[in-house]
Amino acid sequence: MKAIYLSKGKLEYRSDLPVPVPGEGEALIRVLKAGVCRTDLEMAAGYMDFTGVPGHEFVGVVEKSATPGLVGARVVGDINCGCGICAFCKNGEQNHCPDRTVLGIKGRDGAFAEYLTLPDGNLHHLPDNLGDAEAVFMEPLSAAYRIVEQVVVRGMGALVLGDGNLGLLAAQTLEIMKANVTICGRHRRRLDVLDGTRVNAVLEDELIPGKQYDLVVDATGRPEGAATALSRTKPRGTLVLKTTTALKRELDLNTVVINEISVVGSRCGPFVHGMALLELGQIRLSAMVEAEFPIEEGPTAFEAAGKPGAMKVVISF
Amino acid sequence: MKAIYLSKGKLEYRSDLPVPVPGEGEALIRVLKAGVCRTDLEMAAGYMDFTGVPGHEFVGVVEKSATPGLVGARVVGDINCGCGICAFCKNGEQNHCPDRTVLGIKGRDGAFAEYLTLPDGNLHHLPDNLGDAEAVFMEPLSAAYRIVEQVVVRGMGALVLGDGNLGLLAAQTLEIMKANVTICGRHRRRLDVLDGTRVNAVLEDELIPGKQYDLVVDATGRPEGAATALSRTKPRGTLVLKTTTALKRELDLNTVVINEISVVGSRCGPFVHGMALLELGQIRLSAMVEAEFPIEEGPTAFEAAGKPGAMKVVISF
Repeated sequence: MKAIYLSKGKLEYRSDLPVPVPGEGEALIRVLKAGVCRTDLEMAAGYMDFTGVPGHEFVGVVEKSATPGLVGARVVGDINCGCGICAFCKNGEQNHCPDRTVLGIKGRDGAFAEYLTLPDGNLHHLPDNLGDAEAVFMEPLSAAYRIVEQVVVRGMGALVLGDGNLGLLAAQTLEIMKANVTICGRHRRRLDVLDGTRVNAVLEDELIPGKQYDLVVDATGRPEGAATALSRTKPRGTLVLKTTTALKRELDLNTVVINEISVVGSRCGPFVHGMALLELGQIRLSAMVEAEFPIEEGPTAFEAAGKPGAMKVVISF
Repeated sequence: MKAIYLSKGKLEYRSDLPVPVPGEGEALIRVLKAGVCRTDLEMAAGYMDFTGVPGHEFVGVVEKSATPGLVGARVVGDINCGCGICAFCKNGEQNHCPDRTVLGIKGRDGAFAEYLTLPDGNLHHLPDNLGDAEAVFMEPLSAAYRIVEQVVVRGMGALVLGDGNLGLLAAQTLEIMKANVTICGRHRRRLDVLDGTRVNAVLEDELIPGKQYDLVVDATGRPEGAATALSRTKPRGTLVLKTTTALKRELDLNTVVINEISVVGSRCGPFVHGMALLELGQIRLSAMVEAEFPIEEGPTAFEAAGKPGAMKVVISF
């Protein structure tokens, strides 16, 4: 099958990969579209030391499954696959199973391929009113929703740093959950996605110097983002970290202690809630797609996604 | 008056300092005893760049005050002094007033002197059944209590790293609040203070390799403590940081994000609750005093407090 393959930091298009064979309880899914995410770019730069097919934002059609009603269904899928027997899995926290695989990130080939496999239990039927292009955003939107599972945001003054896809989705999610949201980024055209919403969207040099917020989300994807976010967090406030980077980063722990900041690591969220957010019809997605590339042009798609200010780049099959 | 004076990292005994003059709403307090804390040692090593009289753990007698009933009272005192008019002060959070002074730490001479001044509102009458030696522990005990204000610990598996005074007090406080507590330190004689309590007190090489806990408190006072504590925190667990150090420290933020750890900076606590804990009669303090030195031997007291495994060193007047 056709796929993009990552090995030792080198990304290439290949047409000679075998179609994966689903294990017990797993489905074979034909990929329709897959989104390129900042994490994919970081992985291409060495983060996670991954060899195989990257890609974890996708929409597809189930081709094989033992679960009734699943074959033929258009689906999205949770990307973490637990062992099913450890304490975390038993507690519904397969995201933190120590033996988990993660689609296109850890121990499991991903979505930049004609076919992928996932456990049946990870899959979610898509309603007909959600298009393929919107469905690609389900994974980052669920990750944005994860913030409001971890922190009660209602009424808080919130600052989202970073106008990447996750930042734009986090700002909209926080706003829906009744925080007073400012998003700060480097790209006017990306911030313009939020025109007409209640989110206050500003460029870095428009942010009021020294102003601090109850809640700050680092969605910059940059190594220095955490330190900037900390400097913008009020004493006793909450700093949510969404960024993982190939580079090691420092955080001034004396400031964390003296200002009694709560630093909350935040990763994947539940797809059911991401879907619920989409069905509210208040999240602006269509303006967020930059370009679509066929799988054969995968490496070019990565280049396009890595350009400053690029919107979501989608790979299609 | 007699005092210990810190300037440019040099600590000296002086007998020529003037008695401080209380400002409006402030009391003049004659110090009876003062405890040497890890923070004092860090300050002597350059932390906070403080010049003046250090010392913030004390018990004393009020000599001057305009507040009825305060003159002659034996007191302890909250060490943070807010401006009284900012949003933090109005909200009862003078600990985080941006213009605050902190007794013996920031902008205000401290307790290693015959006299100090504090706002009347910071002072707490000591009940007769609490001795001077116990009262010296009020500040660190209140700081230990701060943890259970920030985190609901009941039923949690908790690990306290560090068998310094704060570690020993934190372990006992968490145990009283119904956590299942292990404390891990480097000094058998310090850990022995907890003999006969329900706290599991172990040396570093007795800690089960790889075992992780719901809640981990870094009270090591060492730069590498935070990273060790993070490695002992379960995914989705809570890491409480109590340590401030002169050295900059690193924390692996990728692990914080991937394991969705909550890192909680924790500083001073309310004296009223520290006092309540003491009155419960379940905190072991008497075994925690190493030695008492007269103020004239202040620098020697600092040396004694800095020795590995030293218990609380007290300076008396």
